[in-house]
Amino acid sequence: MTLSGAALGSDGTIGILGGGQLGRMLALAAARLGLKCHVYSPDPQSPAFDVVRRATHGDYRDESALDSFAGDVDVVTYEFENVPAETARFLAARRPVLPDPAVLATTQDRLLEKNFIAGLQIATAPYRRIDGPADLAPALEAIGRPGVLKTRRFGYDGKGQVLIRNGDDPEAAWNAVGGAASILEAFVPFEREISVVAARGRDGRIACFDVTENEHRDHILKVARVPAEVPPAVAAEAQRIAERIAGAFDYVGVLAVEMFVVRNGTGHDVLVNEIAPRVHNSGHWTIDGASVSQFEQHVRAIAGWPLATPVRRGRVEMINLIGAEVEEYRQWLEVPGAAVHLYGKGGIRPGRKMGHVTRVTPE
Amino acid sequence: MTLSGAALGSDGTIGILGGGQLGRMLALAAARLGLKCHVYSPDPQSPAFDVVRRATHGDYRDESALDSFAGDVDVVTYEFENVPAETARFLAARRPVLPDPAVLATTQDRLLEKNFIAGLQIATAPYRRIDGPADLAPALEAIGRPGVLKTRRFGYDGKGQVLIRNGDDPEAAWNAVGGAASILEAFVPFEREISVVAARGRDGRIACFDVTENEHRDHILKVARVPAEVPPAVAAEAQRIAERIAGAFDYVGVLAVEMFVVRNGTGHDVLVNEIAPRVHNSGHWTIDGASVSQFEQHVRAIAGWPLATPVRRGRVEMINLIGAEVEEYRQWLEVPGAAVHLYGKGGIRPGRKMGHVTRVTPE
Repeated sequence: MTLSGAALGSDGTIGILGGGQLGRMLALAAARLGLKCHVYSPDPQSPAFDVVRRATHGDYRDESALDSFAGDVDVVTYEFENVPAETARFLAARRPVLPDPAVLATTQDRLLEKNFIAGLQIATAPYRRIDGPADLAPALEAIGRPGVLKTRRFGYDGKGQVLIRNGDDPEAAWNAVGGAASILEAFVPFEREISVVAARGRDGRIACFDVTENEHRDHILKVARVPAEVPPAVAAEAQRIAERIAGAFDYVGVLAVEMFVVRNGTGHDVLVNEIAPRVHNSGHWTIDGASVSQFEQHVRAIAGWPLATPVRRGRVEMINLIGAEVEEYRQWLEVPGAAVHLYGKGGIRPGRKMGHVTRVTPE
Repeated sequence: MTLSGAALGSDGTIGILGGGQLGRMLALAAARLGLKCHVYSPDPQSPAFDVVRRATHGDYRDESALDSFAGDVDVVTYEFENVPAETARFLAARRPVLPDPAVLATTQDRLLEKNFIAGLQIATAPYRRIDGPADLAPALEAIGRPGVLKTRRFGYDGKGQVLIRNGDDPEAAWNAVGGAASILEAFVPFEREISVVAARGRDGRIACFDVTENEHRDHILKVARVPAEVPPAVAAEAQRIAERIAGAFDYVGVLAVEMFVVRNGTGHDVLVNEIAPRVHNSGHWTIDGASVSQFEQHVRAIAGWPLATPVRRGRVEMINLIGAEVEEYRQWLEVPGAAVHLYGKGGIRPGRKMGHVTRVTPE
């Protein structure tokens, strides 16, 4: 059965590129709805392989394996934004790929992403393009210190980022990011980090989850709390921003927009930090804390099924279990009302996301 | 890794006998906790196969396949009570089988089950053993009409049952159940049918879900509502009965006890109808309607992990989608707050459970 504008049948198969915990939780959400999943991943130890019957362990450039994969599925999606552009193009010639690979081209590159956001008249931190060390001095002059040098590509969880303070040698920062094409961003003295996880259906309907407040540790999300402690006007603006971005992309699926809330006199400014064209760690609370999860919303969207209207079940706190913290699951199993999620990853490594815990309390 | 009294590690594998929707939802609950599942089923179209990486399509009497299966898992459980006794014994010699296969011997046979319940001083409908047609007349004399002739083995969803009213020929009923060893039960003019889904851990701790009220159509569960509309004393008695039964079996896992509530003057009697030594359709509401599902409780119990304390999220209604009703999922997807579950079964047949919908409303 192939999909050509029509909605997926209840016997449909979703192809998922990437086999980490996001792919795993997408597959679990699809299974609730009776849909089958085929996971494609270059990692033979992919945790998502354990929850599907059909899995391909293959390289993203293996056209023969990709072709078989495409032939077995009705629609393709991805759990991470660094899918090689050629892989997405190759698959898109065979099956619908959602969200549209054009979104990847923008979000894989911090400069293009920032330009895209700015083009929508949405505020970001001031930034400058850095193609070589000679660009740093004028950029620092314009933006001020501290500034953050970030590689345009392949950065996540703080990787590929260096802070340049007063007195720091910009050239050392340039070397620290490996001399890769970058941007220099003004350091944002934010009051809070928030995010909006939004789903957009094929019909253009958008459903936002409530604004989440994110607490990072060592650049990795540690705790997400909902609702974010921001004034209603700030929450509304954050959701409007996410909706505008989703609309501008003609997006289909779930996306997350990370934002900074900055005090400005008696009010607040909301600056977009980055866009994740996928389900997002800051939306994991929705599994237990909302009437529909971000994973099911994504599946509904790419299947051409109607989005659900998410209703939050109370105040929600989601705590990531990172690295060796996963062993805390034993204590969490004993905590009344705590929902424990483990990702079935074999090896514990520092900084590796191994599971999470969600707690919902009545408001 | 094998299990010898110790709790399953977070890298453990659960073996599930049976590949229907109950096995599927068990596997999905295990996956949330990071556990792997291996499903064993004689049906090549088993819906549970779609959500696990390891599946065996084999006969329950194929000792070689069973041996490989046992070698791949740490603990064995089942999604249905008619696992052949020899299969359970064969596996129990190799791996822990939970709940204990001794429970199957009792619950596979209505007479042994009723005797077991009666032996605990718990009320049931009056019943008599029927080994042949000659036993019917004295049994009907003792119990009165209408009576229900039920085969001792392999009855479910109303199969293997015949009502004997005034004027009916008992011998015709005997022929209608295929001349199989049976019991004759008094017809119970119940006010309501209720059930209690209870989990018992390896440590003997018991956690009951709230009492569910069950509405059948054509002998198949159609709607389950929680809480049941019964006086608090009746609900408490129903839970005590389930706890007593679980304790008497030294049970490990989830079991369901179906009961009749019968008006008696100004009060009520609670009679046990039957015991299901497994997760149960009347507990499906717990996935969306409680802080922990019956499936996760079963997994926690057989893994030797602590049980959770279930907290109900509101008034809950669970509606089965039976046969062609599955097509109603399209409308249900549009209903705010409705959680749609489809089981991924290929063929629609009358009476076949294809999915369910859960609605939770604040109390």
